[in-house]
Amino acid sequence: MATQGKVITCKAAVAYEANKPLVIEDVEVAPPQAGEVRVQILFTALCHTDAYTWSGKVLDPEGLFPCILGHEAAGIVESVGEGVTEVQPGDHVIPCYQAECKECKFCKSGKTNLCGKIRGATGFGVMMSDRKSRFSVRGTPIYHFMGTSTFSQYTVVHDVSVAKIDPKAPLEKVCLLGCGVPTGLGAVWNTAKVEAGSSVAIFGLGTVGLAVAEGAKAAGASRIIAKRFGVTEFVNPKEHEKPIQQVLVEMTDGGVDYSFECIGNVSIMRAALECCHKGWGTSVIVGVAASGQEMATRPFQLVTGRVWKGTAFGGFKSRSQVPQLVDKYLKKEIKIDEYITHNLTLEEINKAFELLHGGDCLRCVLKV
Amino acid sequence: MATQGKVITCKAAVAYEANKPLVIEDVEVAPPQAGEVRVQILFTALCHTDAYTWSGKVLDPEGLFPCILGHEAAGIVESVGEGVTEVQPGDHVIPCYQAECKECKFCKSGKTNLCGKIRGATGFGVMMSDRKSRFSVRGTPIYHFMGTSTFSQYTVVHDVSVAKIDPKAPLEKVCLLGCGVPTGLGAVWNTAKVEAGSSVAIFGLGTVGLAVAEGAKAAGASRIIAKRFGVTEFVNPKEHEKPIQQVLVEMTDGGVDYSFECIGNVSIMRAALECCHKGWGTSVIVGVAASGQEMATRPFQLVTGRVWKGTAFGGFKSRSQVPQLVDKYLKKEIKIDEYITHNLTLEEINKAFELLHGGDCLRCVLKV
Repeated sequence: MATQGKVITCKAAVAYEANKPLVIEDVEVAPPQAGEVRVQILFTALCHTDAYTWSGKVLDPEGLFPCILGHEAAGIVESVGEGVTEVQPGDHVIPCYQAECKECKFCKSGKTNLCGKIRGATGFGVMMSDRKSRFSVRGTPIYHFMGTSTFSQYTVVHDVSVAKIDPKAPLEKVCLLGCGVPTGLGAVWNTAKVEAGSSVAIFGLGTVGLAVAEGAKAAGASRIIAKRFGVTEFVNPKEHEKPIQQVLVEMTDGGVDYSFECIGNVSIMRAALECCHKGWGTSVIVGVAASGQEMATRPFQLVTGRVWKGTAFGGFKSRSQVPQLVDKYLKKEIKIDEYITHNLTLEEINKAFELLHGGDCLRCVLKV
Repeated sequence: MATQGKVITCKAAVAYEANKPLVIEDVEVAPPQAGEVRVQILFTALCHTDAYTWSGKVLDPEGLFPCILGHEAAGIVESVGEGVTEVQPGDHVIPCYQAECKECKFCKSGKTNLCGKIRGATGFGVMMSDRKSRFSVRGTPIYHFMGTSTFSQYTVVHDVSVAKIDPKAPLEKVCLLGCGVPTGLGAVWNTAKVEAGSSVAIFGLGTVGLAVAEGAKAAGASRIIAKRFGVTEFVNPKEHEKPIQQVLVEMTDGGVDYSFECIGNVSIMRAALECCHKGWGTSVIVGVAASGQEMATRPFQLVTGRVWKGTAFGGFKSRSQVPQLVDKYLKKEIKIDEYITHNLTLEEINKAFELLHGGDCLRCVLKV
């Protein structure tokens, strides 16, 4: 490639400050260093975590400004740094905010999909080798975000953060496999391990909640209760005077087998736990709460057999399993298209953020 | 038996009011009705839940006065009511506050040891058939407690609440298998399922906490960290300025694999969760908190892979598994004798409660 080893100047949406419109800028993207990959992003979706970070209510220590947001995308490898062997220029890839190094204590544990290798850098908006950013605008460094920064025509990621996928897959669709859809499916399949015949309650029906419903259907759940269509039963909390957990316990003869909180609201996390059946009900927290917020319940809820857990990226090992999810999509075993309600371009990103806050947008995919 | 079908007048320790000394009274014990068993209690130990209830800080709705406390005991069946087939007069038994009917939704689920059959009665201090007590003093009914009421020479329990045990077992020892020891062992074996090589932190080293340590040793745990001896390492929270969870995370390179809260303190429940390793650490609540208290944490603790659960009677199915624990004791596979620090008589029960609040008493066994 003509660009290999050189700085690339391209368009990117820069977030200079919380709550201020993103600015489309000419950004300089440095070449990948050892263990890094420069990716041309072709399509990126917006996820609520981007909007959340942009709003300033961030997970500490993430969310440094100025930065380039974005973490649900697909693209093509432009060039690779020294020592990178698993991908090469031209490979179709999905950047993964959840890395998988296959070598750290976490990756080797066999018990989690979290990887410890690069967290100490990505959590601070920099690359691991020199703790610096590869992005700059007129000489000023711009922080990375979640190790992905996909709101840019080119981005640099760690090699442990790219999943190589089947080149036949349509990138304008499979970009969604970078976050929301796997999070929901995996919460059901990997974290809760829902069995056939189970009853399931879902709190929050955005992309993640709908993917939970989809995953629960695939797992053979007999009752899927939530607030909207596409599920077997629905409940509107506003139509009941009792706490929603009590309504659910009554309509399910003691509570549901599994519940999923896909909002990030600590009061609803409590309701989700307490609507579970005594003795075995398991509640999975999928939503991300605002920094510093705490969830609470009476310990009796757990002593009487309920289990409280959480999930990140649905428990999927990113580099190993994202390609498998792409294959499942190609075989029509999982849905993606149905979540894409809007299509815009990178230039229209501020409009896309507005859409995300409206009621009828699940995913807006930007052509980059 | 000469007493069969007749009211038995015997000695029992009656709790008339919270925090008032128990009174040794002549109590009338009615014959067992259908599905009930009258048991001559020979030995009973005191557990903190008895002391707790007596203090008035009870789990709702349990803890009605006047009542006969006691739930960790062993005795011999005196007579049985109509339809009782699994035990007969002369059988050696351990009354079980956690019933096992083998027929209800819970018992059949294969997922829990909780049994739903008689909770609606035992939780209110009465027997299921007529919602009345079998105890009275001079015509005034005295409530049952936890479906066991073992601080009496004779008690009446539901047939689903007695475990028939090997008559060779010394009742003055195996009475401890009615609560504390199985709760600790089972929290490790059944609820947490601790694997060989794991690290374990224990908060609270009374009988239950020591049984957790014992269970963890048997499971092959490589590090057992707690506050006292009998474990591989100990930590005194008073010697550290940092929160105890942070101390533990640092001394275990990221946190323990399993933690157990055996106190019933909601702040310590939080510490126990937060000292667990990211990605897989599991914290089990064993202690019983005061009524109305709530535990809290940041949802991030669960989203990053920690699991919060609880246990009641260590997850053991009472009638099926208490006899197996008795057999394990007879084969010297589990310890009981070591927990018995004091022996007194039923008449000395108020002294026994005082001992329980002192530091050097684990279990005081009363000869009834």
